[in-house]
Amino acid sequence: MPSGQLTPQSPVDAARMLRAIALAERSPWPDPNPRVGCVIVDRAGEVVAEGWHRGAGTPHAEAAALALAGERARGGTAYVSLEPCAHRGRTGPCSDALVEAGVARVVYAQADPNAEASGGADVLRAAGVQIVGGLLADEAAALNDRWVRTITLGRPLVTWKFAATLDGRSAAADGSSQWITGPAARADVHALRATRDAIVAGTGTVLADDPRLTVRPDTVVAPTDRRTGPEVAPGAAAAPGPVGSQPLRVVVGLRAVPPSARVHAGPGEVLHLRTRDVHAVLAALWSRGVREVWLEGGPTLAAAFWAADLVDDVYAYLAPALLGAGPAAVGDLGIRSIDGIRRLEITDVSQVGADVRVHAVPSHPVRPARSVVVTGRE
Amino acid sequence: MPSGQLTPQSPVDAARMLRAIALAERSPWPDPNPRVGCVIVDRAGEVVAEGWHRGAGTPHAEAAALALAGERARGGTAYVSLEPCAHRGRTGPCSDALVEAGVARVVYAQADPNAEASGGADVLRAAGVQIVGGLLADEAAALNDRWVRTITLGRPLVTWKFAATLDGRSAAADGSSQWITGPAARADVHALRATRDAIVAGTGTVLADDPRLTVRPDTVVAPTDRRTGPEVAPGAAAAPGPVGSQPLRVVVGLRAVPPSARVHAGPGEVLHLRTRDVHAVLAALWSRGVREVWLEGGPTLAAAFWAADLVDDVYAYLAPALLGAGPAAVGDLGIRSIDGIRRLEITDVSQVGADVRVHAVPSHPVRPARSVVVTGRE
Repeated sequence: MPSGQLTPQSPVDAARMLRAIALAERSPWPDPNPRVGCVIVDRAGEVVAEGWHRGAGTPHAEAAALALAGERARGGTAYVSLEPCAHRGRTGPCSDALVEAGVARVVYAQADPNAEASGGADVLRAAGVQIVGGLLADEAAALNDRWVRTITLGRPLVTWKFAATLDGRSAAADGSSQWITGPAARADVHALRATRDAIVAGTGTVLADDPRLTVRPDTVVAPTDRRTGPEVAPGAAAAPGPVGSQPLRVVVGLRAVPPSARVHAGPGEVLHLRTRDVHAVLAALWSRGVREVWLEGGPTLAAAFWAADLVDDVYAYLAPALLGAGPAAVGDLGIRSIDGIRRLEITDVSQVGADVRVHAVPSHPVRPARSVVVTGRE
Repeated sequence: MPSGQLTPQSPVDAARMLRAIALAERSPWPDPNPRVGCVIVDRAGEVVAEGWHRGAGTPHAEAAALALAGERARGGTAYVSLEPCAHRGRTGPCSDALVEAGVARVVYAQADPNAEASGGADVLRAAGVQIVGGLLADEAAALNDRWVRTITLGRPLVTWKFAATLDGRSAAADGSSQWITGPAARADVHALRATRDAIVAGTGTVLADDPRLTVRPDTVVAPTDRRTGPEVAPGAAAAPGPVGSQPLRVVVGLRAVPPSARVHAGPGEVLHLRTRDVHAVLAALWSRGVREVWLEGGPTLAAAFWAADLVDDVYAYLAPALLGAGPAAVGDLGIRSIDGIRRLEITDVSQVGADVRVHAVPSHPVRPARSVVVTGRE
């Protein structure tokens, strides 16, 4: 809380901030920008405008609300779920805009954790605006925990999904693998894919299994309705969005993929990254605004992400079945002895249809981008 | 219900039978004999004796109760949870004993499913005893569902336990495996081992891991307190029993096991079966009275039981961890394509400490002993 100051708040302040946080929940994720909401009241205390950030390239929450409020913002108070920014991205700094609109008081929740964009409270205070920071800060921070992780790491978050038998086989000896898990597990995967903005597979998987790497139409979500993580029930997704809301399909590897491959057939964009360097993959995706990667097989690509400590969480779909032979779900990680075992911590175990889903996060620290470039909000 | 007949029963009859079933729950399992309880009332309707079977080589429930009742059984009623036997094992047939004691009426619950021992109701009826069969039959049958399975299959039931990482490795590339799962999972294994009467491992596992194959003292149960299956909470085990209550330790395979191996160190008996034939293993154990086998590694022995369809249920302890290389939990089952996958049905998934425990039963039918010999009750 470098630039905010905690002062006694009224119940009215808290109610306004809860509303700003509720508006922020409408902001999309994944997105290069944090989720922010704003409520503006006039000098008499009446709500005159509400705004929230609608995604990269659109106005910040404060700008959206100020545009609606017009002259009625003068002498009023702005409640913002995140400290107003002080940097110039695609839009001007919100702190300047608040000053220009004549807002007399700014109450914000979470201090801006983005070094490049922070300092907005100082700008406002220097301009004579009364500042209250930290009101309901924890509640607001929870909106953006994954955004904070991405800007801290300087790379997209990587969720690795694999399906295997109880004895760890992802296919039979002859390579056949359809289907190891049941329809409920596959539907669950589609629902989770829809919460990410890129789906990544290696050329080996694309050439062997010819997957579409798309999200099924009934689980496609509009960009403004995207939420993250397992808290989104499959049924909670919005009506099918535009084509652009299909996650980016990404193929990684040096081998050529024929134009007839099904990965080229689905709606939306396909990107073939001809590299074996997983850091290069994440850097390329980051520069395109990707913040949440859904990584599917094969074992070689997954092992490369693991070896580089670039897997942030795992969904393992385990079929109650045995194969006794066939490709393993994970390739060689260079581990020789039990001392080198890679541990995870289970966050959730559930039955999905006839199968078991284990959600887990690595026990060891993950690594940031090879050279972290904090781009912050646009 | 070939020899019983359902007649209207009084609430008094039902209450007496519930008591007989409660007494049967004191009978041991595993055991070559079923669990049976008996209540005898005199001609005035007063309870004069209770009995239950205390394990192979001890009197049947009816005999135990008749011995206590003495002359007071004459003209009275015997309530038995299982149809009195008509065959001569180590003890005489209970139907004869009931006739000789002058019992006027016999009420039983479950008809005897063992062809060799059945017919007791007919013997009694021919002797002029009034017979009521099938009272609370389902409740009584639940006592002996695993005993019925063993006499139907003519072999011990086989529970296979394995521990592996999420990617199906039971050891690291150099063979080290201590410990993949955590202390809570290992304690859980000891508690379940204690509910079986034999623990089986291959020579490969014994030579590589040098396991004791014993049950930890605090989970050893007295023979009369043995119960089966996962319904036994670890803490529910009785106080440590005599040395003889350690399950039989069985090593299977052609290789020699040195006298210094730890499997020889623990209390109780060790049996080395120098064969690769899993049918021969089960036949040898059956003839020794073993009815519940706890099968632990290695992958080769487990694969042999699977290939022969001789695994009745599975406990998989999955550590949230990755190894990427190392021995698989299951050896080659001869499966080439996904069509040959061996499916199971999950009966229970739970977290045990930091690990996941999956309990499952095969979806395909299991096989009986190669030549089924029904030995019935002794």
